[in-house]
Amino acid sequence: MSLIVKSKQKSFGGTQGVYTHQSASTQCEMELSVYLPEKADTEKCPVIYYLSGLTCTQENVTVKSGFQKYANEAGLIVVCPDTSPRGTDYPGENDSYDFGSGAGFYLNATQAPWSTSYRMYDYVVNELTDLINNNFPVIQEKCGIFGHSMGGHGALTIGLKNPEKFKSISAFSPIVAPSQCPWGEKAFSGYLGKDKEAWKNYDATQLIQNGHRSANNILIDQGTADDFLTEQLKPELFQQACEQHGQPLTLRMQPGYDHSYYFIASFMKDHISFHQKNLHQ
Amino acid sequence: MSLIVKSKQKSFGGTQGVYTHQSASTQCEMELSVYLPEKADTEKCPVIYYLSGLTCTQENVTVKSGFQKYANEAGLIVVCPDTSPRGTDYPGENDSYDFGSGAGFYLNATQAPWSTSYRMYDYVVNELTDLINNNFPVIQEKCGIFGHSMGGHGALTIGLKNPEKFKSISAFSPIVAPSQCPWGEKAFSGYLGKDKEAWKNYDATQLIQNGHRSANNILIDQGTADDFLTEQLKPELFQQACEQHGQPLTLRMQPGYDHSYYFIASFMKDHISFHQKNLHQ
Repeated sequence: MSLIVKSKQKSFGGTQGVYTHQSASTQCEMELSVYLPEKADTEKCPVIYYLSGLTCTQENVTVKSGFQKYANEAGLIVVCPDTSPRGTDYPGENDSYDFGSGAGFYLNATQAPWSTSYRMYDYVVNELTDLINNNFPVIQEKCGIFGHSMGGHGALTIGLKNPEKFKSISAFSPIVAPSQCPWGEKAFSGYLGKDKEAWKNYDATQLIQNGHRSANNILIDQGTADDFLTEQLKPELFQQACEQHGQPLTLRMQPGYDHSYYFIASFMKDHISFHQKNLHQ
Repeated sequence: MSLIVKSKQKSFGGTQGVYTHQSASTQCEMELSVYLPEKADTEKCPVIYYLSGLTCTQENVTVKSGFQKYANEAGLIVVCPDTSPRGTDYPGENDSYDFGSGAGFYLNATQAPWSTSYRMYDYVVNELTDLINNNFPVIQEKCGIFGHSMGGHGALTIGLKNPEKFKSISAFSPIVAPSQCPWGEKAFSGYLGKDKEAWKNYDATQLIQNGHRSANNILIDQGTADDFLTEQLKPELFQQACEQHGQPLTLRMQPGYDHSYYFIASFMKDHISFHQKNLHQ
């Protein structure tokens, strides 16, 4: 697996890179960003993966959230992949913002035609982590994951299913119960089929109910002025499951904040600090 | 003059707004962003104006630079206007990135057809400041100006010509001597005509030579890896003029940084602190 450099730019003392590579999981070229703090010039560093939300590419968080300042201060490498395969030309791939391109939902599709390349779960959990471990100075056992909205769903489900790999989990306004909201129902029906048994494997609230755990406390920030809060996000469902099943969780409702990158940027410092602490930096 | 609210979003404790209004100076609808720190809920605050570079709108700095964090901490209002009139439909208005739309150069054009609406100097100095003073809780006598590239040129020239109004000036990678670089020669020829006497009024280096001063030290940050450094920006010309004519200047060459918003974001904190100090906050 070889990485092609698209750009490298100095940012807050470190280096913000954008790369492409040919992916075996998704059968197409994938773009990602990798931020290396100054510290990575001379020693290995912990790494955190940020998964983005619907309609996003790697670029949104990379140019809008300002994570570089805090990542450089904390000595953390930050990896931001794309949200789906691109250019597969399946019928309907580009018809809606919440299914197909830009909406991979971090799962392995089982339904044709999506099952060939919509394999973002395998991509993130195995291929991307191998790629990063082989190409950047990371401390492999110090690895965390976070994300926003659909990417918060991705971070929670991937983290809970792979606690030995991702030791620290946080999320901004995540979809915590996709089996119980319109975004998740549409995506899971299309990618996984109508049988809801198959959905449980990609639903953070059900994963908690079924015994999956993170070794550390999970941090979730959620804006109270988020237009998607009551219909799509429903953090109380995850909170109830965590309380009932003994998963430590800090859910912070942030008054007046919406679903945008202004919200994410406002609390990015706290999330970077959270991962730094969990990864014993 | 009435302001129309396009959006308001909470950001770092304050409120990031985007507005439009019908401009008398530019004869069209103009868009701008205004950030209000939390402090502005209960008292008047100093204000700083940020002028953007070629191809930009108000949006680039508003979503990419992360100034909101520092502005909220400093209790400063930040106003970001657009870079030119829009939609005038003059022949050639949209033909190049460095002339016409997105490239107003913060001057009053004297050449037809541009002279009717390409009046960004009047817009910023008079109309925009009146609009802000009348609609937001600003301390009018505590006002600063800064900008990037073409907007750095705007901040230097507007600030030097109106020192009683703009008491604090800084810039990221500014065009300091537009009469002596291709960007400036093209823009000034088109907007002001071939007679270079008329150009002196909009050239920061010549303004210093002709006796214009800022009451405070001027801060300039410039990346050494900026592709435009030697052909277009030439900060040494401004530095020499300031040294010869007694204008205090801090020019910081920042190793490895380019012309992008990654560079601006990396040093935004210092610029906000600089203006806060100059405005005696």
